[in-house]
Amino acid sequence: MITDFGLEDPYVGVMKGVILSINPSARIVDITHSITPGDILGASCVLKESLSYFPTGSVHMVVVDPGVGSLRRPIAVITENYVFVGPDNGVLWPAIKMDGARIIHLNEKRYFLKNISRTFHGRDIFAPVCAYISKGTSPDKMGTEIKDPVMPHIPVPSVEGDKLIGHIIRVDRFGNIITNIRQEELMGFLKGKSPVIMVGDLIIEGLKNTYSDVPEGQELALIGSSGFLELSINSGNALDRAGIKKDKIKDVRIIISHKS
Amino acid sequence: MITDFGLEDPYVGVMKGVILSINPSARIVDITHSITPGDILGASCVLKESLSYFPTGSVHMVVVDPGVGSLRRPIAVITENYVFVGPDNGVLWPAIKMDGARIIHLNEKRYFLKNISRTFHGRDIFAPVCAYISKGTSPDKMGTEIKDPVMPHIPVPSVEGDKLIGHIIRVDRFGNIITNIRQEELMGFLKGKSPVIMVGDLIIEGLKNTYSDVPEGQELALIGSSGFLELSINSGNALDRAGIKKDKIKDVRIIISHKS
Amino acid sequence: MITDFGLEDPYVGVMKGVILSINPSARIVDITHSITPGDILGASCVLKESLSYFPTGSVHMVVVDPGVGSLRRPIAVITENYVFVGPDNGVLWPAIKMDGARIIHLNEKRYFLKNISRTFHGRDIFAPVCAYISKGTSPDKMGTEIKDPVMPHIPVPSVEGDKLIGHIIRVDRFGNIITNIRQEELMGFLKGKSPVIMVGDLIIEGLKNTYSDVPEGQELALIGSSGFLELSINSGNALDRAGIKKDKIKDVRIIISHKS
Repeated sequence: MITDFGLEDPYVGVMKGVILSINPSARIVDITHSITPGDILGASCVLKESLSYFPTGSVHMVVVDPGVGSLRRPIAVITENYVFVGPDNGVLWPAIKMDGARIIHLNEKRYFLKNISRTFHGRDIFAPVCAYISKGTSPDKMGTEIKDPVMPHIPVPSVEGDKLIGHIIRVDRFGNIITNIRQEELMGFLKGKSPVIMVGDLIIEGLKNTYSDVPEGQELALIGSSGFLELSINSGNALDRAGIKKDKIKDVRIIISHKS
Repeated sequence: MITDFGLEDPYVGVMKGVILSINPSARIVDITHSITPGDILGASCVLKESLSYFPTGSVHMVVVDPGVGSLRRPIAVITENYVFVGPDNGVLWPAIKMDGARIIHLNEKRYFLKNISRTFHGRDIFAPVCAYISKGTSPDKMGTEIKDPVMPHIPVPSVEGDKLIGHIIRVDRFGNIITNIRQEELMGFLKGKSPVIMVGDLIIEGLKNTYSDVPEGQELALIGSSGFLELSINSGNALDRAGIKKDKIKDVRIIISHKS
Repeated sequence: MITDFGLEDPYVGVMKGVILSINPSARIVDITHSITPGDILGASCVLKESLSYFPTGSVHMVVVDPGVGSLRRPIAVITENYVFVGPDNGVLWPAIKMDGARIIHLNEKRYFLKNISRTFHGRDIFAPVCAYISKGTSPDKMGTEIKDPVMPHIPVPSVEGDKLIGHIIRVDRFGNIITNIRQEELMGFLKGKSPVIMVGDLIIEGLKNTYSDVPEGQELALIGSSGFLELSINSGNALDRAGIKKDKIKDVRIIISHKS
């Protein structure tokens, strides 16, 4: 489960009650409910980073749904190993882009709760659908295949002159800055040379393997556990050090050049 | 489980350890642990909103217990579909008010932990009692039936002159303001007319069906997913827009009049 | 599970996905993920306070690991009732100090994920090891016994002149100040006399049994649910009242003298 519902309100617990009412033996795992309200792209990046660590046959439910109650479609995406369930607003793009993915518009109301509110489809549509799928119902029975899912604009790194320009995907609890620059892209750009990386007030030279490769309190760049370039401080907070405010991370450019 | 224990401390995990020690196959669902410390009424409203979405036979444990260690009684409330366990301080009123509810004063110590602290009955009394009930022990065996439970003062909407006056139950993560005015009460008052709703600095006319019925950033009123009047901003925070501080929501009056 | 990973990032969910991929029937309980980043001693105190409430046979996973990717060893500690898994940085000392505890350096890579990152051993080493142990694999097969675990410096109470000096272990959500002074130590020092306890701006006389033994808003001292001296305000926040800032609690001295 990935949502922007938070844990202060009863919404997540209620969805689990709905799932267990339909499938009492379902195993439910929270990935996070702390997505910034309405941040479709942020939720999809968390999904991309985590999905492959779950058992084959898992049902991934992703509900970040600012358009709830409008005409946006509820969908299920069927891939080789998983089924993904959520709104058709781009949040499921990491699943849709997989080889052989098929998309079902969920329109068979017998798999929903009887009374469907206009503001809480997580409870009324997505939770019961996930429960029935986890019990063995094929998503193909739950609606009609479609070919035109909504796809978001995903910022990708670009080369401008002799520089590689990237963006921040997210910043984690430790203040590590996770970029959208994959290891392969970085290596292709560097061609064996050492990088100079600028982000906010930070200038970092070279790539390290782990935090303790530099003294405590010193900044470093490394390929993180998800395969993306990360910028960190050993036992410190890189976001603070870079002088970047949390609500401005989408506007920040990460500028990489070759060390001269 | 509904508590005010938060997730920073080990209290919730320890209660789960106690439950699983007695009933290893218990399924435990967190509704929320973020109730404001000591907010009995807040916890009871969350219970009311969420209880019916859980499977028949569920045991609902609600621990907001500022009088722990005093003479207040631990109780179980038996209803047609559920058992509710918590302190006799009013937090279980949504269960007590159900048709046919029976209340047991839990005084059979053989269902408690051996050593009972004076400050953590969630661990020492309520968790083991819930575990034994989930294993099949009848709450009737755990104590004596009582008829005089503590009932809280619950603020209800009132008509003053030509206005309907309500209060705020809670504000959720998205800043949606959830009132104590039920759909039936509102419709009865409006008699087919359109409402003008005043809360803090906000004045909202009419009722909508969902957030996207108004442009992004505009305020609206709707009947929320729990059947109460809610005040929202499409993709925004209604509490902030109304200029209400989080610790003052109990003092706010929601004033509804007929549109002239 | 005890970690400093927080719940905003997908790290905890990913570890659960790894565990369930190896042992689909594993029961996983969160104790807390809100340990201050890198606070080894704080995590070990939470472990000490909670471990005995879990069923015999439980595997306790504790990941607070600022030296991840360096040469620090991953270890398992085998005790009479439990197995503990985490980094060899002192975080597991409550287990290591138990009678008959044996320590295994986890160096059999066939129990790890195939690709081991340098920054997320919780996912790549500790989660799979816990999953295999929960499935029945003996930790003895997973590495080599060692006798030289890292032990942290644990601040213990001391007598200075006619005073007993203690420290703060942690402050909970309610603002209760939990000290490192055990009931037995305090009683041995007091020898039947009444204490005067000074902490920050607070001076508290005598010991009470529970919060409601004093009027609302008044300070009190009691032996808490974990057997340590605690300082509280009935329905209030003792840390705020004592004028202590959250990031300074490690420097605070608790000074106990006999009432004259």
